[in-house]
Amino acid sequence: MQKIVIDAMGADLGSKIVVEAIKDFLKDYKDVQIIVSGKKEELKDLEGLVKIIDARDVMQMEDGALEVMRKKETSMIKAIEVAKKGEADAVVSAGSTGAFLTAATIHLKLIEGVKRAALVSPFPTRDGSSVVLLDIGANSENNAEQLLQFAKMGNIYTKNFKNIKEPRMYLLSNGTEKEKGSPVIKEAHKLIKEAKFKGFKGNIEAREVLSGCADVVVTGGFEGNIFLKGTEGTAKMISGLLKDAFKKNIFTKLGYLLAKSGINDMSAKMDYKNYGGALLLGVNKVVVKAHGSSDSRAFYNAIRVAYESNKKSLIEKMREELK
Amino acid sequence: MQKIVIDAMGADLGSKIVVEAIKDFLKDYKDVQIIVSGKKEELKDLEGLVKIIDARDVMQMEDGALEVMRKKETSMIKAIEVAKKGEADAVVSAGSTGAFLTAATIHLKLIEGVKRAALVSPFPTRDGSSVVLLDIGANSENNAEQLLQFAKMGNIYTKNFKNIKEPRMYLLSNGTEKEKGSPVIKEAHKLIKEAKFKGFKGNIEAREVLSGCADVVVTGGFEGNIFLKGTEGTAKMISGLLKDAFKKNIFTKLGYLLAKSGINDMSAKMDYKNYGGALLLGVNKVVVKAHGSSDSRAFYNAIRVAYESNKKSLIEKMREELK
Repeated sequence: MQKIVIDAMGADLGSKIVVEAIKDFLKDYKDVQIIVSGKKEELKDLEGLVKIIDARDVMQMEDGALEVMRKKETSMIKAIEVAKKGEADAVVSAGSTGAFLTAATIHLKLIEGVKRAALVSPFPTRDGSSVVLLDIGANSENNAEQLLQFAKMGNIYTKNFKNIKEPRMYLLSNGTEKEKGSPVIKEAHKLIKEAKFKGFKGNIEAREVLSGCADVVVTGGFEGNIFLKGTEGTAKMISGLLKDAFKKNIFTKLGYLLAKSGINDMSAKMDYKNYGGALLLGVNKVVVKAHGSSDSRAFYNAIRVAYESNKKSLIEKMREELK
Repeated sequence: MQKIVIDAMGADLGSKIVVEAIKDFLKDYKDVQIIVSGKKEELKDLEGLVKIIDARDVMQMEDGALEVMRKKETSMIKAIEVAKKGEADAVVSAGSTGAFLTAATIHLKLIEGVKRAALVSPFPTRDGSSVVLLDIGANSENNAEQLLQFAKMGNIYTKNFKNIKEPRMYLLSNGTEKEKGSPVIKEAHKLIKEAKFKGFKGNIEAREVLSGCADVVVTGGFEGNIFLKGTEGTAKMISGLLKDAFKKNIFTKLGYLLAKSGINDMSAKMDYKNYGGALLLGVNKVVVKAHGSSDSRAFYNAIRVAYESNKKSLIEKMREELK
């Protein structure tokens, strides 16, 4: 039976969405034991279902490396410590991304041979499938050797999660030709090519990432973060304009009512909440960062990501293949 | 009377969209003289309206710096040479971006004091206004000092094109706090802050760029290109999903017909073709890169960008303020 420890605090919508997600999850999955850290008075509904660790302090959004070392009484650090002691296989939190990634890396340590951890998440694609990008923001600068490791980790992740033998892998650049890119990207291209991944297809432009042609896209954390948030911002803007469009007059409003089922299908395809959390690859435990604005369904899916990673022995496979 | 030289070749849809755009433009604007380079047999409809320079060769999409030096008979180089000789104030081309930017920089030279030219373009924002980003792809790596110059050039451009005294300026990063970002971005933040732009507001995340809160966003060419193409790809994906949504069944199809006027308003707001071309800032002439896939309306707007830049004496203002 696998064990997952969950930080119940730090989500924008409060601990109640976490409590709800855990209750739902335990209804659907029987072979899992859950440990929860947080203010115990907010976790009453979970009594008898999970092990509760009372934590009086909460990591704040703006907290960085310094607070990670100081704030030992936070639900986040207490959750990570459970995993550190070997009492859980995975940690899930919706709290401050910077603090969570820093704390997880410090306490759980990088897998032997790994230079930098990377945050990986699937994005929906035009063809109804998905593509994973890494790093989407664990680092603010990466060198070519680190990008090569991201390629390796992304490859292992995709082989296991998508059940593909040879994931179609690309390197994000400003042009498709191999001589395109910053000096770091050009060097990374060379290293990834030399590593002879069977599915490596070369460079990809940001325009094609969501087209469905790729299974894995490798990028540095800074650019990956810009891609991630750029797509979020564009989607938000278009959905706002679409709302305006339907509100224009009585005909457009009626049009919306008629087209609603199609629009809902579309929204479902785009909805990041179906994808759950982003995985931090390269550390010695399964570490899942749920979106700060998660609702209970999104947080449920973040727990599911942790659960499936354990099921697929992702950490063991990383350790073996990255040696 | 201002003079604009236009490379008629190199657009994906062929020279006919350029010919059509020029004819339309000359109907609307009387105080401009146009010179066109290209295969003269394709430019017959322009005889008597413009000065035609016959050019037998065309710069290819994949052509780089080497071809720029070699292919002197291309319509692109011939157009740039007209500007170089002082016989035109502006050059417009829809041909290979790499070749065009390289050739323009080599032949027209950087304005005194400028280290790197930058490509700038407006993006539509949620509030129906626009934001300009630079550099969106003239460079594949930039240092902090170059980013400071982009801030200066973006400021001059926006003051003149948007008629704003103090453009709200941001630096693109992976977090809003000033200590967020790659080492180059952190250093650029310091330099821009020290330069005391009245409208500098600090860092911006990619998610907020299109929200309407910014007039100018400064970024390196590599990340800027990823932002630009990432938004293009996302918009394309959503518009594809939207088409599927409306095609789902007879009700959604009817819904589309009813909502069409609103949807068309939305498409118009999003349409880059209304914005025309991207300007290459920092060289001694007005240089406008039209989108490769331009139709005649988009190319018309690219000519308009050149025309208005001349009207506003953009180059003279750059020279003065960048000294």
